[in-house]
Amino acid sequence: QRRFSISPRWQIRTKEMNEDLLKSLKINQGRLMQDIHHTCQWGTGERWGDAPTETGMTRLALSDTDKEARDWFKSTTEALGCKTTVDSMGNIFAVRPGLRNDKPPTFVGSHLDTQPTGGRYDGILGVTAGVEMLKTLADNWIETEYPVGVVNWTNEEGARFPLSMVASGVWAGSIPQETAHNTREVYPGTATMLSELKRIGYLGETTASYESIPMAAHFELHIEQGPLLEMSNKKIGVVKGVQAYKWFTTTVKGRDTHTGTTDLKSRADALLVAAKMILHSHRLATANSALASTGILNLKPGSTNTVPGDVTFSLDIRAPQDSTVEKMKKLVVADFPKIAAGEDVLGSNDACTFGLPCSVSITEDFDSPATTFHPDCIDSVSKAANSVLGPNSHNLVMDMVSGAGHDSVYANKRCPTSMIFVPCREGVSHNPREFCKEEDCALGAQVLMQSVLRFDRMRDE
Amino acid sequence: QRRFSISPRWQIRTKEMNEDLLKSLKINQGRLMQDIHHTCQWGTGERWGDAPTETGMTRLALSDTDKEARDWFKSTTEALGCKTTVDSMGNIFAVRPGLRNDKPPTFVGSHLDTQPTGGRYDGILGVTAGVEMLKTLADNWIETEYPVGVVNWTNEEGARFPLSMVASGVWAGSIPQETAHNTREVYPGTATMLSELKRIGYLGETTASYESIPMAAHFELHIEQGPLLEMSNKKIGVVKGVQAYKWFTTTVKGRDTHTGTTDLKSRADALLVAAKMILHSHRLATANSALASTGILNLKPGSTNTVPGDVTFSLDIRAPQDSTVEKMKKLVVADFPKIAAGEDVLGSNDACTFGLPCSVSITEDFDSPATTFHPDCIDSVSKAANSVLGPNSHNLVMDMVSGAGHDSVYANKRCPTSMIFVPCREGVSHNPREFCKEEDCALGAQVLMQSVLRFDRMRDE
Ligand SMILES: NC(=O)NCCC(=O)O
Ligand SMILES: NC(=O)NCCC(=O)O
Repeated sequence: QRRFSISPRWQIRTKEMNEDLLKSLKINQGRLMQDIHHTCQWGTGERWGDAPTETGMTRLALSDTDKEARDWFKSTTEALGCKTTVDSMGNIFAVRPGLRNDKPPTFVGSHLDTQPTGGRYDGILGVTAGVEMLKTLADNWIETEYPVGVVNWTNEEGARFPLSMVASGVWAGSIPQETAHNTREVYPGTATMLSELKRIGYLGETTASYESIPMAAHFELHIEQGPLLEMSNKKIGVVKGVQAYKWFTTTVKGRDTHTGTTDLKSRADALLVAAKMILHSHRLATANSALASTGILNLKPGSTNTVPGDVTFSLDIRAPQDSTVEKMKKLVVADFPKIAAGEDVLGSNDACTFGLPCSVSITEDFDSPATTFHPDCIDSVSKAANSVLGPNSHNLVMDMVSGAGHDSVYANKRCPTSMIFVPCREGVSHNPREFCKEEDCALGAQVLMQSVLRFDRMRDE
Repeated sequence: QRRFSISPRWQIRTKEMNEDLLKSLKINQGRLMQDIHHTCQWGTGERWGDAPTETGMTRLALSDTDKEARDWFKSTTEALGCKTTVDSMGNIFAVRPGLRNDKPPTFVGSHLDTQPTGGRYDGILGVTAGVEMLKTLADNWIETEYPVGVVNWTNEEGARFPLSMVASGVWAGSIPQETAHNTREVYPGTATMLSELKRIGYLGETTASYESIPMAAHFELHIEQGPLLEMSNKKIGVVKGVQAYKWFTTTVKGRDTHTGTTDLKSRADALLVAAKMILHSHRLATANSALASTGILNLKPGSTNTVPGDVTFSLDIRAPQDSTVEKMKKLVVADFPKIAAGEDVLGSNDACTFGLPCSVSITEDFDSPATTFHPDCIDSVSKAANSVLGPNSHNLVMDMVSGAGHDSVYANKRCPTSMIFVPCREGVSHNPREFCKEEDCALGAQVLMQSVLRFDRMRDE
């Protein structure tokens, strides 16, 4: 086994690090912020404030700007002594050798892709914090027992290619690679994941699989994307799991007709029917303490004076329990066809003329059952959070369940996994104004690094 | 004055034509159908049947295929001895000289542009029937008292550039030319009418105006686009007027947020609000015997897991009376902001969680008040219909009001105008399956020609 390649003179083994040493090992907040904002030159989005960094991000997966951010990730981690591997889903794994390289690395992972109008922290914080960990380990001549790695997962957002966490899903064996490769972009609909992986040069030769690239553990730092930490003045969320969600596509078919000559009774208005379905899905969500959201809606033919005959929309249903999501699905599948057939599902107060029936088809595109993270990883994060936040930590750390999906969901299927959350302003995410304080980014990165070192230390036990 | 240029040997003056002669002068049904389907090679749309002509049309205004259809119109009418003029809105006027060319021509007009998923008859029948009239007059050595013309109006549909009848509107002085020229295409939104007029070479030097191109009258043959003629087994509609309509654009602004981490109460979901508005507009239409239709809806950012913060949709409101359209407008303008603010305008049965308020803005883009056509033209059409349909005509002719707008609405502001309707299958229009029987197309063209000759004959009276 080749040992860590920098001079071994001041080398410290993680096994030899006591609590004081662990606590005193500090990531560099300024450098982390510099990396975050440096990488945000690729895909800079909408400006919302005057300061140079007060813009959102528009870095859709496998776009030209995503390629630039990837190139940065690859060259930066290689310069830090890592070996990088690109797999057949474009996932980039950067591995820093440890003392025993016969065993899989402990990974830190997240994603560099963003929403169409996303922010500077969602995903980006997790990857740059991983890079900052590598830099801090190098600065301090730390030698880990086992290799540690940082992974940039492809298309976590599911924004451009409408399957979230798809590349970690393929890695975990949960999503067939063919399905992923053939997934078509939402807009304009020409490219597939495969064609874009090829185009930007990130279709790797290593099979995307937990078998070809095994992991000992997966830790992910992320902004909360919700308001709970901020509202309760906490600094670190110890994430114990992720709520369940499913994505559906609903297509309503009516009949294109003239808006001026077709009376309300003679219409098969696919948009009116879709509007009723969207409203109804929110009523079902309200009644079942679930979430229902439509983020995409396309209609045809798209002319002011033609009643649309064809409407397709997305439906994202979430709830903490799988059974609630399943119940919501049953209700949607039962009620949407009734709405399309002209039944008054919205209640007798809906004094809207019912036209001719439309047809409806509903497909389930994506399913992510509720996730419970691994106790060992949760324990590492919990101890790290308490160590980093010190005596007052019981007031600053909070256990929580993630509302959003993350690549850790799929990682968790194949290795011990958990996550660290930091607060973001007003809980707003998937928005250019998404914001996380510098000190909170740094606290999160600090907890992330310490979690990895703690896990590395305990791997033999 | 130069007289009609073909050999005058068999020339008949319209003044000299008695009822029998008028009745015996026949357009050529086969030739008319050939012209219709010949021109439908440019912009052929969706196939719905097996026969060669069983397809719809996709010939958006000022597209490449519209240019080809225009070129055909120009060269065909010129070959028939007409002088053509293209005005600054791309309207093409083809004029066949009469005995007294010091007076404005009697025009036949309609349009060659179609909906994105339109049919082979809407507009096209009117223009090709005009051409067939020119051919029949030439075949029979008819010399009219005054010149007769055929006009192809630009962008009647308002589908690509969302102002219907815009080019006849400019000609009539009702729509400022600058407004028209600057109108941007609905999709993808790059081109304007002016840029496309230039690009396809149809920006004429003559000012689009009733003053530079005066008309003695305007007759238009059109498919009904509604079911009334077919339902009552009538063959010809004598159109006495057109109902009122207004077009609006509504923009709802909320906040982009994550679908998985934003509870229903913390959302400003612009699409949910828009869905409520669309539903409400239909309830208002039901309550007021009006029509309300949304044919275009665009949202941003368009990602499955982002609550849309920005939705824009069209609203087309129609009713026979101006006062009804005005009342509908007042209700929409009063209620949409309430819906955006979270008031339960849809009634207490709407058990949908109300989120944060959205903002809303509503602009009126287009206004076409109720139209009453000119008694002289109505009279010519009525007499022509009775002559063409013979002794049983009282069972086959029907007075009616148009549900759709037509260029005749604007023509009517500057010259005596009326229209002729023929039945179309199931009343369906703005749909690839739009269909009008060959014999009905021919009957309509026959009535159109005779209406023009009758009007020409009576102009001195
Ligand atoms: N973190 C995040 O925004 N992930 C996208 C997947 C999801 O929709 O929850
Ligand atoms: N005839 C026709 O479809 N015209 C379009 C204008 C309208 O919307 O009524």
